Amino acid sequence: TLSREFSTTSTASYSSSDEEDDISPRERPQVNSKGFTDFCIRNIKHADFGRREIEIAEQEMPALMDLRKRAQGDKPLNGAKVVGCTHISAQSAVLIETLSQLGAKVRWCCCNIYSTQNEVAAALAEAGYSIFAWKGQEEEDFWWCIEKCITADGWHPNMILDDGGDLTHSIIKKYQTIFRGMKGIVEESVTGVHRLYQLAKTGKLSIPAMNVNDSVTKQKFDNLYSCRESVLDGLKRTTDIMFGGKQVVVCGYGEVGKGCCSALKGLGSVVYVTEIDPICALQACMDGIRVVRFHEVVKTADIFITCSGNKNVITRDSLDKMKNGAIVCNMGHSNTEIDVASLKTNDLTWEKVRSQVDHVIWPDGKRIVLLAEGRLLNLSCSTVPSFVLSITHCTQALALIELFNAPEGRYKQDVYLLPKKMDEYVASLHLATFDAHLTELTDDQAKYLGLNKSGPFKPNYYRY
Amino acid sequence: TLSREFSTTSTASYSSSDEEDDISPRERPQVNSKGFTDFCIRNIKHADFGRREIEIAEQEMPALMDLRKRAQGDKPLNGAKVVGCTHISAQSAVLIETLSQLGAKVRWCCCNIYSTQNEVAAALAEAGYSIFAWKGQEEEDFWWCIEKCITADGWHPNMILDDGGDLTHSIIKKYQTIFRGMKGIVEESVTGVHRLYQLAKTGKLSIPAMNVNDSVTKQKFDNLYSCRESVLDGLKRTTDIMFGGKQVVVCGYGEVGKGCCSALKGLGSVVYVTEIDPICALQACMDGIRVVRFHEVVKTADIFITCSGNKNVITRDSLDKMKNGAIVCNMGHSNTEIDVASLKTNDLTWEKVRSQVDHVIWPDGKRIVLLAEGRLLNLSCSTVPSFVLSITHCTQALALIELFNAPEGRYKQDVYLLPKKMDEYVASLHLATFDAHLTELTDDQAKYLGLNKSGPFKPNYYRY
Amino acid sequence: TLSREFSTTSTASYSSSDEEDDISPRERPQVNSKGFTDFCIRNIKHADFGRREIEIAEQEMPALMDLRKRAQGDKPLNGAKVVGCTHISAQSAVLIETLSQLGAKVRWCCCNIYSTQNEVAAALAEAGYSIFAWKGQEEEDFWWCIEKCITADGWHPNMILDDGGDLTHSIIKKYQTIFRGMKGIVEESVTGVHRLYQLAKTGKLSIPAMNVNDSVTKQKFDNLYSCRESVLDGLKRTTDIMFGGKQVVVCGYGEVGKGCCSALKGLGSVVYVTEIDPICALQACMDGIRVVRFHEVVKTADIFITCSGNKNVITRDSLDKMKNGAIVCNMGHSNTEIDVASLKTNDLTWEKVRSQVDHVIWPDGKRIVLLAEGRLLNLSCSTVPSFVLSITHCTQALALIELFNAPEGRYKQDVYLLPKKMDEYVASLHLATFDAHLTELTDDQAKYLGLNKSGPFKPNYYRY
Amino acid sequence: TLSREFSTTSTASYSSSDEEDDISPRERPQVNSKGFTDFCIRNIKHADFGRREIEIAEQEMPALMDLRKRAQGDKPLNGAKVVGCTHISAQSAVLIETLSQLGAKVRWCCCNIYSTQNEVAAALAEAGYSIFAWKGQEEEDFWWCIEKCITADGWHPNMILDDGGDLTHSIIKKYQTIFRGMKGIVEESVTGVHRLYQLAKTGKLSIPAMNVNDSVTKQKFDNLYSCRESVLDGLKRTTDIMFGGKQVVVCGYGEVGKGCCSALKGLGSVVYVTEIDPICALQACMDGIRVVRFHEVVKTADIFITCSGNKNVITRDSLDKMKNGAIVCNMGHSNTEIDVASLKTNDLTWEKVRSQVDHVIWPDGKRIVLLAEGRLLNLSCSTVPSFVLSITHCTQALALIELFNAPEGRYKQDVYLLPKKMDEYVASLHLATFDAHLTELTDDQAKYLGLNKSGPFKPNYYRY
Repeated sequence: TLSREFSTTSTASYSSSDEEDDISPRERPQVNSKGFTDFCIRNIKHADFGRREIEIAEQEMPALMDLRKRAQGDKPLNGAKVVGCTHISAQSAVLIETLSQLGAKVRWCCCNIYSTQNEVAAALAEAGYSIFAWKGQEEEDFWWCIEKCITADGWHPNMILDDGGDLTHSIIKKYQTIFRGMKGIVEESVTGVHRLYQLAKTGKLSIPAMNVNDSVTKQKFDNLYSCRESVLDGLKRTTDIMFGGKQVVVCGYGEVGKGCCSALKGLGSVVYVTEIDPICALQACMDGIRVVRFHEVVKTADIFITCSGNKNVITRDSLDKMKNGAIVCNMGHSNTEIDVASLKTNDLTWEKVRSQVDHVIWPDGKRIVLLAEGRLLNLSCSTVPSFVLSITHCTQALALIELFNAPEGRYKQDVYLLPKKMDEYVASLHLATFDAHLTELTDDQAKYLGLNKSGPFKPNYYRY
Repeated sequence: TLSREFSTTSTASYSSSDEEDDISPRERPQVNSKGFTDFCIRNIKHADFGRREIEIAEQEMPALMDLRKRAQGDKPLNGAKVVGCTHISAQSAVLIETLSQLGAKVRWCCCNIYSTQNEVAAALAEAGYSIFAWKGQEEEDFWWCIEKCITADGWHPNMILDDGGDLTHSIIKKYQTIFRGMKGIVEESVTGVHRLYQLAKTGKLSIPAMNVNDSVTKQKFDNLYSCRESVLDGLKRTTDIMFGGKQVVVCGYGEVGKGCCSALKGLGSVVYVTEIDPICALQACMDGIRVVRFHEVVKTADIFITCSGNKNVITRDSLDKMKNGAIVCNMGHSNTEIDVASLKTNDLTWEKVRSQVDHVIWPDGKRIVLLAEGRLLNLSCSTVPSFVLSITHCTQALALIELFNAPEGRYKQDVYLLPKKMDEYVASLHLATFDAHLTELTDDQAKYLGLNKSGPFKPNYYRY
Repeated sequence: TLSREFSTTSTASYSSSDEEDDISPRERPQVNSKGFTDFCIRNIKHADFGRREIEIAEQEMPALMDLRKRAQGDKPLNGAKVVGCTHISAQSAVLIETLSQLGAKVRWCCCNIYSTQNEVAAALAEAGYSIFAWKGQEEEDFWWCIEKCITADGWHPNMILDDGGDLTHSIIKKYQTIFRGMKGIVEESVTGVHRLYQLAKTGKLSIPAMNVNDSVTKQKFDNLYSCRESVLDGLKRTTDIMFGGKQVVVCGYGEVGKGCCSALKGLGSVVYVTEIDPICALQACMDGIRVVRFHEVVKTADIFITCSGNKNVITRDSLDKMKNGAIVCNMGHSNTEIDVASLKTNDLTWEKVRSQVDHVIWPDGKRIVLLAEGRLLNLSCSTVPSFVLSITHCTQALALIELFNAPEGRYKQDVYLLPKKMDEYVASLHLATFDAHLTELTDDQAKYLGLNKSGPFKPNYYRY
Repeated sequence: TLSREFSTTSTASYSSSDEEDDISPRERPQVNSKGFTDFCIRNIKHADFGRREIEIAEQEMPALMDLRKRAQGDKPLNGAKVVGCTHISAQSAVLIETLSQLGAKVRWCCCNIYSTQNEVAAALAEAGYSIFAWKGQEEEDFWWCIEKCITADGWHPNMILDDGGDLTHSIIKKYQTIFRGMKGIVEESVTGVHRLYQLAKTGKLSIPAMNVNDSVTKQKFDNLYSCRESVLDGLKRTTDIMFGGKQVVVCGYGEVGKGCCSALKGLGSVVYVTEIDPICALQACMDGIRVVRFHEVVKTADIFITCSGNKNVITRDSLDKMKNGAIVCNMGHSNTEIDVASLKTNDLTWEKVRSQVDHVIWPDGKRIVLLAEGRLLNLSCSTVPSFVLSITHCTQALALIELFNAPEGRYKQDVYLLPKKMDEYVASLHLATFDAHLTELTDDQAKYLGLNKSGPFKPNYYRY
C-alpha cells in the first residue's frame, strides 16, 4: 500500500503472516537491534517494512514535515512528556516522530485492539520509541499497554494525546496526582470529546482540554471531502455497481450527505434526500435535489445511504418494501442508522457474498445487499487518504504546542476549540500540496478590515 | 415585469412617465379614491398598475401568504405599531400588507431616495396605508418622509423595521421618549447592524434589536444562491460575453465567491481564485480551483470579479497590466473593491458604451470593460429574485412577531440573532415551493438525538 | 453593445432614431463621403457608429482576422465575385471585409427584412462596399435588393454565399446562365440546405454547393455551447426567475437539449427530459436525468422548454393542465413546437407583460407565462455571442476558398459537407482565444496512427 | 462478487483453488451429472458456484432476459448453429443461454488464455453446453479448443460470434468450405473488426460480417460511461489517492478522455488536456479545461492518464521530468501509450508495491508510480460493470438475429454496422432499468418529421 489508514479490510491483507505468531507479545523477549527493550510489539523483524511505509507516508504528509523544519530551531515541545493513545499507522508514526523532533518525549499505545499496523509499531520500536501496541490484543492486553505508557521509571508525563478517552479516563481514575499536574489534553474523537464535556460539566476536569474534533479544517476533510470520495470507493469495491442513472436516497444533508450527493451526481446518479432540518432541506432543493420522505422512494430506489447521525433511519418495515437488489449502507457516525438487528429474524436468510457484503434474502427470493453490516462504509470498505490524516495529525500537533506553551491563565479547567488562528495555520501548511498561493493583506487593507495581517481572518463561528 | 426588486436599470424603464411630473409630491394634493389623505406619493393614478405588480409578487412569496393564513386567528401583531423604512417594491408591499393582516398598524417610508417603485407606493396608498415615499427624492424630502412616519396624531409607534439605520437613528436623536418605550428594532442591512452593535457597545441601545441580516437562511440566499445566478445574468446583460472557455479570476472564496465560481464552472469557464484566508483557499483547492496571487493571472484572464469585502483588491497597477478587452466587475459588499478612482486620470479615456458599461481606454488603445463603475453588479445589472426577498421579508416578519410577543426579560438592551428555531421556520415555510417533504422525528429518535421534535435541530453556530 | 447579433430586442434599442426616417431608402439619394453611390442603405450618417461596432466585433473574431493575415500573401479569393445574402451585423461585416481582403469582389444584401443593423450597413457603404439592405424593408424591397446584388454593370458573379436560399433561388429562376457559370454555393441555414438537397435530387443543381450548416465545429457551437448559455439568459431576462430548485421539463435531448439541461443543472434546477429516441433517452439517464412522459410532470413542473425539432410537443391539452405561473418556451428550430394557435380561443385572455412575455389567463385566473409567442427563445430573448458567429463566418469563408480553388472535378453537381480537414482548421483558428496549445504528432506517431500530421485526425462521421 | 467481468485482479482471487489442479483438463475425464461429455473445462464440481454467479448476472442484464421473453414465441435463431469465441464470464454465460433459448445451437471457446471464469464454464457444461475453456491455458490448448468448437460430429456451424478474430481466421484458413456456407460473422473487438476490414479490402471476406464494436449505444457505454467510473475506481484501488485538488493531465479528449475528465472534475481535481485534434481541443476549452502541451505540465502534475489511442504519448524523457510521487497510467486502447520499455534501464529500480502497482525509482530517489505496467487501467485495476456488458451482449445477440434472418441480398460480402434501428432497440431494452419512459410520436408528428413511428429516429451518422 502507498498509504492506508487502519481498516479491517486493508490491514487484513498486510498482516496475514502475523497469524503464525501464536505467542503473546507480552511473553516474548522484546529488544531492538541497539539493545533497547522498553516497548512491546508483535515482531521487531518487520521494522524495515514498517519504516518504508512510514517513509512513503512522509511524502504525503508535507505539513508535518514542514512543521518539523519550521519549529526545529526552538523546539517548542522541549520539556513536553506526552502519553499518546491512537491508532498505530504509518501516518500516526509520522506524527509521533514529529513530536519527538519538536522536543517531546513520548510513550504510545493503541486506542483499539485491532488498529495497530504491526510493521509500523516495529519500526517505531526499532527507532527507539516506547511503543506498546499490536494487532489483535485481548481486552486485558489493551489496558496493560495503557498502564505501561502512563507509568515508567522516571517518567512524569505532562500531556495527553487521546483518541476515544480511554487513556484519559485511566489516568483520571488511577493517577489523579499525575493528572492534576498536567498541562493539558488533546482529544480527537467524537466520543472522547463528549466524555470531556461530561467531565467539565461535573467539575472533574482539572486541566484544560482541547477538542480538535471540531476544528473547521479537520471537520471539512473528515466529512465533506473525505466522504465525497469514499462513498464511491466503498460502494464500488463492494458491489461493482455502475453509478450512472441509478436512483440513490441519501438520508441526511449535513456535511457527509452533501459530500455523498455531490459525488454521486457527478457520476450521473439521480439523488434524493431525506431531512428533518428545514434549512438543510432547503439547501438540498437549491442544489437541485428532490427532498422526499422515505416512503415515497423506498420501493423504487436502487441504493440507500444513511448519514443522519440518527438511529433507525432505515427500519425493517422499510427494508421489507425495498425492491430486489437494493443496496443499503451507512456513512453516518455510528452503526445505529440501519436497524440491522431487525433483519436477524428466522424468515430471512443471510448469505455472505464477499468480505463486507451480505445478501439478506426474503422468503420470496428478494435480496437486499447490506454493506459492512451497517457499520461505517467509509471505514469498513474504503480507506482514509493520507491527506485527511495529515490534516488531523497536524491539528493534534499544533494543539499540543498551543496547550504546552500557552501563558498561565489562557486556558482554564475547560474544553476548548483550537484557536481559529491555528486552525487557519493547519490549512496554510497544506496549501503547498496544491501549489496554491495565498494573497497577503496590505497594511492598508488589514486596517480597513480591522484584521491582523497574519489572521485570524474570520470570526470563530465562521464555518461555511 | 413579473417581479423585480429595485435596480437602476429595471426601474428606469417602468417609471419613464414620472419625469413628466415636475411638481414635488409634497406640493401636490394627496388623496385616494376613498378620501384618505395621510400619505405622500408620486401619483395615485398608477395604483392599479402597482396593485397588479403586488398581486404577481404574492404568487411568488408563498411563505408570507402562508403566514397570513396560519397567524390570522390570533393576530400575533395585534397592538403592534410599526414604523418601517425599507425599499418600496412589490415584494415589500407584500410584507407591509402581511404585517397589517397580522394585526399591526404601520407607517412606512423609503430607505433610499431612488428605491421606490412609484406605482407600488400608489397602490399601498390607495389601499389606505400611510406611505411616504417616491422615486427621486431630494435629501430633504428623505428626512421629511421619515419624520412623517414617526410622528402623527395619536400615533405611538412601538416597533421599528429598518434597513440601513437611518430611521432608528432619527428616532434616537430626536424622540428618545418614543424610543425608550419601544418593544424593539428589526434591522436587515450590514450597515444598520453595524450601527446597532456600536450603539450597544456604547450603552445607547435602550431596547432590544434583532439582527436579521445574519440569519442562516437569509445569508445563504442573499449570498450563495442569489449570486450564483446574478453573476451570470449581470455579466451577460451588460457584455453578451460567452462564458465557455473564458478565464475568470474571482477574488475571494466566501459564500459570494463560492456562488460565482460554481455558476461559472457550470458553464465551462476556467476559474481562478485569490484568497487571504487559508481555510477558504483550501476549500477552493478541494473544489478543483487553482488558488493564485493576482499578478500570476492579471495578464491572461478575461474576466475579473471581486467579492472579498476588502478594498483596493484591484488596483490601477493591476488594471494597467490587464489585456485588451478584459472585463472588470464587483460582486462584493460595497464599491471599494476596485480602485475606480485611480482610473480617473488624464491619460485614460472613458467611453460609455451602454447603461452600466464603460470602456476605459489606455493611450495604446487597450480597452478595459468596467461594469457599474465598480458598484455591485448583482444590484446594478441584474435583479433580485422574488424568492430571495420572500426569505428576507419572511425573516423580518417573524423577527417582529418574536420581539413583540417575547416574555418580559427574554431580550435585553442588546442585539440578537433570530432564534435558530425561527430561522428554521423561515426555511420550512419555503419548502412547499419546491414540493419538498420534510421528515419528522419519531419520539424515539428525538430522544436519542436529544432534540425537540419541532426543532431547533442544530446548534446556533451551525451554518455549513 | 459590445457585440450582438440580430434580435428583435437588441436592435430595437439601437435604431430608435431610424423611425424618424420616413422616406424609403430607395427614394433617397445614396452617396458616401468619397462620392461612391452603388449601394442602398438607411442613413450614411451613422457610418461612424457602425464602424466602431465593426471594430469591436473584430476583437472578438480573431479567427477571421487571423485568416486575413495568413492568406493575404496569395489572396486565395483573387478573381472571386461573391453575391452575398445574410443578416447584416457587425459580425457579418467582418466576414465581408475579410473576403474582400482575401481578394474577392462582393455585392451584398440582407436575408431577412428585419435583420439589418443600419449603422453597420452604413459603415460598409462608407467603406465602398455595394450593400443593399436596411431594417424594416417591404417584401418588394427585399427582392429588389437581391436583384441589385445579382446584376450590375460589368458584374459577373461566380459564387454565392447564402443564408436561407432566397438568393440562390432567385438566380436559378431568373439567371440560369449566370448560375451555370458559377463555381459554387455556400449555404448556412437548415432551410437553405434542405432546398439545396431538393434541387440536387431533382437534378436542378448544376453547380456544387457546400452545406456549412452541418460542419461539426459550427454545429457544436450553434447548438450545444450556444444554447447552454442562452437558455439561462433568455429565461432570466424575460422572467427574472430563480433557477435553483425549480423543476424544468426539457423536451428533446439532442445537442440543444443537452446544452439546456447541463446549464440548468449547474444552477440547481431539477431537470426532466422527454424523448422519442431510446439512445438519447439512455444518454439522459446516464447523465442523471429522469426520462418521463409529458403527462407525468405536466401538473408539477415550473418551466417547460421544447427543443425537439418536432411539432405540437406542447398541446393545448397540456397547457390546460399546467399549474399557475408555469413558464413555457421554445429553444427548438422553429415555432411549431408549442401549439400557440390553440391558445387563441375566446375563453383565454392574453396580457402582454413585457416585451416577449405574454400571460395567457384561464377563466379560473390561472396564468401561463408564454415567452416570445413560442418562437426561438435564444434568438428572441437573448443574443448570439460573437464567438459563435466567428465560428460560423470563418466556416463560410473557408468553404468559399475551398470551392473557388478546388481542382476541376473534386466537386460535382451535388451538395457537400465542408471537408473534415477544413472543419478542423476552423477549430484550430479559434484555439488562441483560449490560450489552448495543440500537440503535434511526431512522424513516428503519425505513421502508427496512419494519419497525416496536419489532419484530418478523425473520420468524417466522427462527431461526438 | 456480485458481478465482475474478467480482470487479472478479480479473477485471481476466485480461482486460487484451481492451482491445486495440476493435471490439464484435456487429460482429465470430462462428464457432467447427466453423463454429458462433449466439453472440456477445469472442474465440473464448481458448477453450483458458477450457476449462482450466472443467476446474479441475470438480474443485472434485464435486456437479454427481456429478449428471451419477447422472442421466445417465434425463436428467431431456430436453425442457427453458432460457434462462439469470447471471454467466459457470468455475463457471457447469460448471452450463451439466451442464444440457446432463442433457438440456436452453440459450441463455445474462450478468446484469451486467461479470461475464463472456471466456475462459470463448469456451470455451462453442467447445463449441457459444449464449452471448451479454462483459465491458464497453454497456447496449444487455446487452438485446440477453437478446433473443438468448429468441428464435431454432425455439427455444421453457420454463424460466428467472435471477439478478436482468432476463431474467424482459423475457419478461413482451414475450413474454407464451412466458411463460405455461413450466414455471417458478428465481431466485437477493435482488433477483430480491423482484421475484417482487411479481409474485405483484399476480397477474402466471402460472407457478410457485422461490426458491433462501432454501434452507437455500445460505444457510449464502453468508452464514455464505463471509463467515467473506472478511472476513479482504478486509481483509488491501486493508490488510495485523494482526488480533490490534484492536478491531472489527461492525454486525449475523445470519448474516454471526456469520461475521465468529467469524473475527475466532479471530485475536485484540476484537469488539463493534451490533444492533437483541434475540434476535440476546442471541446475541452468549452468544457472549462485548459488545453496544454505535455511539457507545460509535466513537472507539476500529480497524475498522468493516457487515452489517445496513440503510441509513446508519455516518453522516458517526460518520465524523467515528472515530480516525485507522480502517478502514471493508461486508459487508452492498448499498452503502447506509455513507453514502458524505456523504463527498463539499469539506472532505474523497479519495486512492486502492490498488485498492479510498481514504483520506478530514479537514482536520486524520485519514485514514479506506474499502474498495471501501462496496460489498461480499467481492465487491470477495476471491473467492467454488468450493465456495460448487458449492452454489449445484447448488441451481439441482435446482430446474430439480424444476419441470420436478413432476406437474401440485404447483406453482401462486406463489413456492416448494426442497423440504426436495432442499435436504438438495444438502448430501448435498457431503459426499464432506469424507470425511463419513452415518448411515442403521434401519427401527425411522425409525418411532420418524415419518420417511422418505430424508428430509426436519427440518421446513421448521428452519434453525439
